[in-house]
Amino acid sequence: MTAPLHEAHPTSPGRRLPDTQQGMRRRNLSRVMHTVSAEGPLSRAAVASRIGLTRAAVSTLVDELIRSGLLDELGPERPNRVGRPGSALAVSGRGPAGIGAEIGVDRLAVCVVDLRGEVRARAVRHGTNRGRAPGPVIGELTELVRRVIGEAEEAGLWPAGLAVAVPGLVARDARTVVRAPNLDWHDTDVGALLPFDIPLTVDNEANFGGLAELWLGEATPHDFLHVSAEIGIGAAVVVDGRLLRGTRGFAGELGHVPVRPEGPECVCGGRGCLEQYAGEEAVMRAAGLEPGEDRVGLLAERAGHGDKDVRRALRGAGTALGIALTGAVNLLDPEAVVLGGALSGLAPWLLPSLERELARRTAGPACAVSVSRLGPQGPLLGAAHSVVRAVLDDPAAAVAGRS
Amino acid sequence: MTAPLHEAHPTSPGRRLPDTQQGMRRRNLSRVMHTVSAEGPLSRAAVASRIGLTRAAVSTLVDELIRSGLLDELGPERPNRVGRPGSALAVSGRGPAGIGAEIGVDRLAVCVVDLRGEVRARAVRHGTNRGRAPGPVIGELTELVRRVIGEAEEAGLWPAGLAVAVPGLVARDARTVVRAPNLDWHDTDVGALLPFDIPLTVDNEANFGGLAELWLGEATPHDFLHVSAEIGIGAAVVVDGRLLRGTRGFAGELGHVPVRPEGPECVCGGRGCLEQYAGEEAVMRAAGLEPGEDRVGLLAERAGHGDKDVRRALRGAGTALGIALTGAVNLLDPEAVVLGGALSGLAPWLLPSLERELARRTAGPACAVSVSRLGPQGPLLGAAHSVVRAVLDDPAAAVAGRS
Repeated sequence: MTAPLHEAHPTSPGRRLPDTQQGMRRRNLSRVMHTVSAEGPLSRAAVASRIGLTRAAVSTLVDELIRSGLLDELGPERPNRVGRPGSALAVSGRGPAGIGAEIGVDRLAVCVVDLRGEVRARAVRHGTNRGRAPGPVIGELTELVRRVIGEAEEAGLWPAGLAVAVPGLVARDARTVVRAPNLDWHDTDVGALLPFDIPLTVDNEANFGGLAELWLGEATPHDFLHVSAEIGIGAAVVVDGRLLRGTRGFAGELGHVPVRPEGPECVCGGRGCLEQYAGEEAVMRAAGLEPGEDRVGLLAERAGHGDKDVRRALRGAGTALGIALTGAVNLLDPEAVVLGGALSGLAPWLLPSLERELARRTAGPACAVSVSRLGPQGPLLGAAHSVVRAVLDDPAAAVAGRS
Repeated sequence: MTAPLHEAHPTSPGRRLPDTQQGMRRRNLSRVMHTVSAEGPLSRAAVASRIGLTRAAVSTLVDELIRSGLLDELGPERPNRVGRPGSALAVSGRGPAGIGAEIGVDRLAVCVVDLRGEVRARAVRHGTNRGRAPGPVIGELTELVRRVIGEAEEAGLWPAGLAVAVPGLVARDARTVVRAPNLDWHDTDVGALLPFDIPLTVDNEANFGGLAELWLGEATPHDFLHVSAEIGIGAAVVVDGRLLRGTRGFAGELGHVPVRPEGPECVCGGRGCLEQYAGEEAVMRAAGLEPGEDRVGLLAERAGHGDKDVRRALRGAGTALGIALTGAVNLLDPEAVVLGGALSGLAPWLLPSLERELARRTAGPACAVSVSRLGPQGPLLGAAHSVVRAVLDDPAAAVAGRS
């Protein structure tokens, strides 16, 4: 198994850097960045005490990070105290930024996140991508990326990398979409179609959604299963703060777990897969509705108004999710299940049957089920933040990569 | 999530030892032991070149390991070559040994494995343990353990630890059986019932089976799902050479993955769990046979003679396994599935339907399914070897622990 593409554990930045003087310097630069990012503004002395280096060593590192534009000096703090005032350090709101992109079944979205974690630019294009050839879709995505990079540059930011979330299985090369049945793409080298000369990562949208939850969620545990759905249903398995990727990079295919083995045929070739009961279009069909553009909005509205057919369809989807999650919880014993993606907007009507099914089928205290605060933005934010975290994990490489 | 109890990856022994001079010495002792264990007999020079230390440093370590009785000097090698002859080192066949024990639903078994990995003593007691109180069962196990320790001591071995495989869920304290439905044990502190003053580990039998496969299997990959069964069905999830334990230590509960959600009721409180279709007793029932003592032997014999009912029952069990494994393979994307435990004796009749189900339900090339060479001995061997590996991982601690 090759190394994971994302070192997701926030307490062990840059740990895979080589064990040399140069590697140690890079690890220490990363420690300073992570510390200021998590707890800043902080004085040099505070950073030194937190990471266990001398103040002199930290000052050298900080000076390098300021020169590279990754840290800002906010000016003297504690002016009333005795002694030389410390100068508070903060992560720069200029400098490198992460570009996140999402190829959804019916939208394209792009955003820019700075090192402080703030979204600085966004662009969205609605419209179905189902059955469209990769070329034109990625052409449109390229336009959106160019637009937000332009905005970012006006604000003093530069793109440190581009991460693209796709609704399909991605090979471990982090470029090739092996199979995205809801787009009808197969073995598509997304990397080759994107004209940008910056580091690129392509990953499954559920993986980016899970990472977003790990990095941005409130009190998310380090062992959880993140479920995200639009038309397809994907999961991210996070174990001990790291994404479980699987041998081929295909781990987390919750949507094709058999729920009723003799159920309806699925695009995957199987029968009775979870997507046949809890995917957005399956729920629309079960509720007797025509699949339109804003499926989740329509379902939520109707369910909110007490529409019996819609509520029954959502109960059925919750039951199917509960059955599939029983298997997953039994296998993985996670601390929590987090519902994200479009699903999260339907949680009030899905959760009761989902939790009932999970409780009656899993012995002992049932696994906690919570709803992501990030909702459908998770994958896009996770993509952009994966670039930001790569900068924090190895600031020297990010700056060197610019030249 | 607490640290895993077994550091299963053979190439990174002792990596969790503290980063001090003393820790470094202990890590280096471990490197020497693992190197000689994997590749010996080896000269000091060969060990030095393999682990990247000077010959002088290795000699100091080797002398300590010889004094502790963990390595043997076999006498001069290469007598015909020019220069001072090297003396070949081998892992000692005396000294510390691992005691493995298994509490099965209808047997107790114990074995002693020396540092060379050889089984040096065994004891088995047949008879059902179902519904028996823990005290008397563990009393009988204690007698068996005493007997094999006596035999081991006569051969110059001493017990470095005891590891007990149980057919149930074990808490992360590695002592308490939280739930073993097929014994009807609940919250049983097995540690408190065992009178031995040596390091003790209690673990699920499927976990020990999976570790045995990782350590002793032929060409076992580092990412696989190990399935083992007698009456219950358990799995071990091995990711990147390490056992995935889950938050509570309950990961790998394959037996209670729903196969047919409205199927027969299960002891766990759910319905249509895998055990209801592929557990030994379920297969006996489906074949119209009375559950006796040697169920697998009887099933294999009848199937071998072409008994149609038995073959149909085994086909059904294979189909159910295929459905449950589809979910597991979709979630984990392992390199292989390995069938172990009693199941492995029925593989010729289970595999065709199992593989057909897995192939038609998982997109892309189906995950390879293989049959363990260790069969029903896996959990017992895994238990004993877990003690041996703990000695190889930190020889200094094992020797110090004896005094």
